[in-house]
Amino acid sequence: MKMASNPLHTIMAPQSVAILGASNNPAKMGTLQCLNIAFGGFSGQVVPVHPTEDTVLGKKAVKHILDLPFAPDLGMLVVPSPLVPDMVDDFGKLGTRHMIIITAGFKETGPGGKALEAKLLDIAAKHGIRFLGPNCIGVLNTHLPFNATVVPWTDPPGFLSIASQSGTYIAQSPAFLKRTGVRFSKAISVGNEASIDIVDCLEYLGEDPETKAIGLYIESIRRADRFLETARRVGREKPIVAQYVGGTQLGARSGTSHTGALASPDYVYDGLFAQAGIIRVQTIEEVYRVGNALALQPPLSGNRVAVLTNSGGPGTAMADVCDRMGVAMPEFSPELQKKLKANLPPHASPKNPVDLTFHMGIELMTKTLPELMLESGEIDGLLVHGIMDTGWGELIWPVFNKAFGMSREALRATMLLDVNPLLRLAEKHGKPLCLSSFMDERLDNATVEFHKAGIPVFDSPEKAAYAMGCFYRHLLIRQRVLDPPAPLGPAPEAARSLVAAAGADPMDEHAAKEILRAYGVPVCREVLAHGLEEALKAARETGYPVAVKACSKDILHKTERGLVHLGIKDAGGVKAAVDAITKEAGEVPLLVCEMVKFDREFLAGMARFPGFPPCVLFGLGGVQAEALRDTALRVAPLSLGDARELALSLCSKDLLGAWRGMPAADLDALARVLAAVGNIALHFPQIREMDLNPIALSGGKPVVLDALFVME
Amino acid sequence: MKMASNPLHTIMAPQSVAILGASNNPAKMGTLQCLNIAFGGFSGQVVPVHPTEDTVLGKKAVKHILDLPFAPDLGMLVVPSPLVPDMVDDFGKLGTRHMIIITAGFKETGPGGKALEAKLLDIAAKHGIRFLGPNCIGVLNTHLPFNATVVPWTDPPGFLSIASQSGTYIAQSPAFLKRTGVRFSKAISVGNEASIDIVDCLEYLGEDPETKAIGLYIESIRRADRFLETARRVGREKPIVAQYVGGTQLGARSGTSHTGALASPDYVYDGLFAQAGIIRVQTIEEVYRVGNALALQPPLSGNRVAVLTNSGGPGTAMADVCDRMGVAMPEFSPELQKKLKANLPPHASPKNPVDLTFHMGIELMTKTLPELMLESGEIDGLLVHGIMDTGWGELIWPVFNKAFGMSREALRATMLLDVNPLLRLAEKHGKPLCLSSFMDERLDNATVEFHKAGIPVFDSPEKAAYAMGCFYRHLLIRQRVLDPPAPLGPAPEAARSLVAAAGADPMDEHAAKEILRAYGVPVCREVLAHGLEEALKAARETGYPVAVKACSKDILHKTERGLVHLGIKDAGGVKAAVDAITKEAGEVPLLVCEMVKFDREFLAGMARFPGFPPCVLFGLGGVQAEALRDTALRVAPLSLGDARELALSLCSKDLLGAWRGMPAADLDALARVLAAVGNIALHFPQIREMDLNPIALSGGKPVVLDALFVME
Repeated sequence: MKMASNPLHTIMAPQSVAILGASNNPAKMGTLQCLNIAFGGFSGQVVPVHPTEDTVLGKKAVKHILDLPFAPDLGMLVVPSPLVPDMVDDFGKLGTRHMIIITAGFKETGPGGKALEAKLLDIAAKHGIRFLGPNCIGVLNTHLPFNATVVPWTDPPGFLSIASQSGTYIAQSPAFLKRTGVRFSKAISVGNEASIDIVDCLEYLGEDPETKAIGLYIESIRRADRFLETARRVGREKPIVAQYVGGTQLGARSGTSHTGALASPDYVYDGLFAQAGIIRVQTIEEVYRVGNALALQPPLSGNRVAVLTNSGGPGTAMADVCDRMGVAMPEFSPELQKKLKANLPPHASPKNPVDLTFHMGIELMTKTLPELMLESGEIDGLLVHGIMDTGWGELIWPVFNKAFGMSREALRATMLLDVNPLLRLAEKHGKPLCLSSFMDERLDNATVEFHKAGIPVFDSPEKAAYAMGCFYRHLLIRQRVLDPPAPLGPAPEAARSLVAAAGADPMDEHAAKEILRAYGVPVCREVLAHGLEEALKAARETGYPVAVKACSKDILHKTERGLVHLGIKDAGGVKAAVDAITKEAGEVPLLVCEMVKFDREFLAGMARFPGFPPCVLFGLGGVQAEALRDTALRVAPLSLGDARELALSLCSKDLLGAWRGMPAADLDALARVLAAVGNIALHFPQIREMDLNPIALSGGKPVVLDALFVME
Repeated sequence: MKMASNPLHTIMAPQSVAILGASNNPAKMGTLQCLNIAFGGFSGQVVPVHPTEDTVLGKKAVKHILDLPFAPDLGMLVVPSPLVPDMVDDFGKLGTRHMIIITAGFKETGPGGKALEAKLLDIAAKHGIRFLGPNCIGVLNTHLPFNATVVPWTDPPGFLSIASQSGTYIAQSPAFLKRTGVRFSKAISVGNEASIDIVDCLEYLGEDPETKAIGLYIESIRRADRFLETARRVGREKPIVAQYVGGTQLGARSGTSHTGALASPDYVYDGLFAQAGIIRVQTIEEVYRVGNALALQPPLSGNRVAVLTNSGGPGTAMADVCDRMGVAMPEFSPELQKKLKANLPPHASPKNPVDLTFHMGIELMTKTLPELMLESGEIDGLLVHGIMDTGWGELIWPVFNKAFGMSREALRATMLLDVNPLLRLAEKHGKPLCLSSFMDERLDNATVEFHKAGIPVFDSPEKAAYAMGCFYRHLLIRQRVLDPPAPLGPAPEAARSLVAAAGADPMDEHAAKEILRAYGVPVCREVLAHGLEEALKAARETGYPVAVKACSKDILHKTERGLVHLGIKDAGGVKAAVDAITKEAGEVPLLVCEMVKFDREFLAGMARFPGFPPCVLFGLGGVQAEALRDTALRVAPLSLGDARELALSLCSKDLLGAWRGMPAADLDALARVLAAVGNIALHFPQIREMDLNPIALSGGKPVVLDALFVME
């Protein structure tokens, strides 16, 4: 049932396709797509629809959609945008329920295009049609094969599947993929996502047995809630690697004129991806190459990695990357070191990295040394730099030829290495293996053999180590204990009344704190008072020392205006504070608060971004620390696990532990505060922003000392 | 004179070479080196020395070094290590003064090797011989040409020169360089740096007219002072790009077993490189590719960059990278937008990025659009993604062939693009141009033509934008006003006495502060007192409130032991403090200090690292902020400019400006404090560590409130 419900199952593997926009003119985009379907090995039926030609690219064409003798599984449109709605209608009448609309000129172009896209959606809805695009480049299924993109796919099928908000990363990159050994399974260009979006892709790829890892290129997510839920589920088993662009000011400006989508700041996606269990990378190369490595190699089952190299420099570069990514490189046991030493040249190091040094015996790296390391049980993954064979021959051949009259082929034959022992070892031990070599498939047969066998060869040591670091990130994702957010339930009555009373005005501090209290958030003790007498009574009840503040929804910037008086020790102090406040602001309500002793300050907040549920922020507080902007974010609703992860994702997370004589923070209590902030925002969409600052840690317990809610 | 003084001028361009270790056995390393010298186009004289063979690789050989009929400019040894010292002696007797010692098995192998290396150095010194190595891979001069490495160089000469502490990055990477369009000018493998080190290389490359940019691979610098001085001078004109590895714990362990060198933490090199005006990159690929772009393209003269693309995704990715690296992408003027719009397809964006969208008219990107942008005077540099020609043909040929029976050559001819307009534009405007394309030289003729013309083509948009960001970093380096450090002069008498008095003991707080005061560092007012009466007198003189602390070189962890009493308001408070201190620590000297009002806390320190002059640290202080470790470092002596740059290199540098109602910091005063810390360390090598914490900002002025000096 579930399988059938996602329209991509049909779109990616149709039995029959009708295409409009293909002709016998090879310079047309639709022609390219039709060529790749028709001549790319697709075994289903392909019918071009063309108003004048009888045959298109050798295929018998029909004149009109309604002339088609049957309803094709898939209709494809590569026609001028004004023609699209009627053609979709025709396909609908015929009974076709799945389409790809390549055509651009919709929402991304402004109001006229937006209206056209709305019309298109209406017509599609009328017929129950789900479609990809408009403004996309098509799809690729290398296993069927079915290639509806503009560029042929000539490589063997792979196990990395891509969903991209830029068609270029499917249509321009095959040359790059080919030479880096990256093999796609499925590729989907989502375009404007009018009907099918990246969440649908994620669901589909999660269900697809030929997808072992997923790569995403993202400029904007419109359904962050469903995205989050789907990625959390799918990403535990299948690693998801994603690049998000547009998170900077310049990037956002560029992205808006690209797809009309509204980008959110980088840290929003940092938070979303962390919460979702997605490995965020920074470049499209990393999406491809790291994704491919994750698709082809078994997962890491621990964090112990060995580095084997024929040169110290690359070994050290790999060690640096491992260290930065939290991957351990344990020194080997004395027994293992002894065994390794027995097989190494005299001055080579048997520790970790194992450094063969400049040495002609490359077969040590394909058999003896990896075998000893993998058999030892001391490692969970292996990084190797420097295995190469005929590539080296290609490099030295020019002088060999001149000196010895040696033919290229003869030298090549001498150089040829048997990499089978390493392939067998990899298979036997089921541990991930990432290689690096400056050679490539064109020069080096060993590289060809490794790629054939699904062992990734990166073109520099840092990249191989980075990929291994991503295996480790996926291990952490798999190990996460995911607790569901508590059911939201109804908002507390007290909170509902306070929000209703506030209307569209800003909410005063006391009301905001009362709402927090209604959600169980610990707030400093305080009493609202009117006039000096009530303030004195409140101070006695609260117990000195106290703080006295003006408390009115109409007053902003209390501190700057001298309306906050802290550390008042006696009645005289209260009187002086009340006098000062009255002088500055008139007879305003007063808030008399206990002075909480604390040793650390944090802050929390809530902000809303387009396409996202409310987001909860947490950060280090205090005037000094705020300059460093050490904050992180999660999407509501937050489970207590999410909230704990949020707290511990700060750079200054050490401050939450026992530190410099201060007790460890009560993380559970803090998590409840953060979850509550999310819940308040979910209950009350009219609260636009929340700012809980500071949240003091008093004896390790969080207490909110001030709060500001901004209403819509 | 200067030219002649650097031994590398001879080593990189000898007239004659004698080599030991080459034979007619092609599997020997020395043979490879000899082959590349003899068959790599070198026009000088090459004489193999071989005990038994009459000819080696077709060259007439002599039996012994002393049989050489003349003193060759360069002697090369690729022989077992025990033979090396005597052979160097023989070359010395003959009159040779320059050598390359490839042989490994010296310092890097332990005590025996260390002794052998010392012996080698003695003998070389006796004869005035300067040498590269031991334990290196040789040198390459592509312009002469002279190739004394193990691998042929078949590409045209370039203008990027490399000095590397790993031979691999010269000997294993030519295949990578070839396919990425990177062309070396000079390459030097420095090995153990027994005689010639990376500083000599930097000096030589600075003087070399065929070097336009310098790439460094560094695991350890032994003469950081000379390195700094040289790089500051050279790097202003010739961009220096450097990778430092070994800065993490795992990396340091790996590096030590590689070359025996002691690595320093990453932040030490961050500081050194920033001070030196070196562009730090993180991968060897960046050393090569960014260095090559900087070598080939004119410098940026401003920060305004335009992005031209045929796809929105890459344009946005480039914008993100530009933003993160501080590069501006101004929106074009309405006039320019209008002109661009007139040449663009209907829905394409004329802003910045200019996004052509999927479009067959690639020539718009090689002529019309770049011309409009460059002529406008609105930009200083240009990034272009997506120019490709025959590569696209190669991709689509398989289906074109099947559909139209079109030959590869015919399709190729159709696709061939004239890139000359762009080449001419680049030449005319003298502004840097970085391209990106997923094609490569093997597939794509446009890429070949660009590489030939010295225009770098990166294989993904992020890489091209990163390179442009490095052009911008170099602009900032060129724009720096470098002031020399003030002459050190003699240490103040007061400081000399205090240090002498301390001996090897830790220094008490008051003494440390007195030394700081002697260097003009503002320190809080304070009086040393013995007993209650003196303390009371001191407090009266200082003026309440005061702090009272125990002050003894024997007492550490004063705060934790309750020996620091702050904010004392009256005589009773002083008595209570003195009583408490006496109870805990006995009758110790007391320090009575003024309580300085302040609003921000920083810290400074001094630490020593192997091979480095003393290093001065500066960071954000305060118990909370210290958890974030926002610190930076510079090498002493610090000029006031260095010290200001140090202060402003903090992430929290906003706190040094006027912030939240607090006055801006007196940066000059702060710079004098930091420079003084360096000077104290230079005067007194017996001070191992210094810790000035906190440095309070009071009315914007720095005041040191506490100081700890640890002696050797």
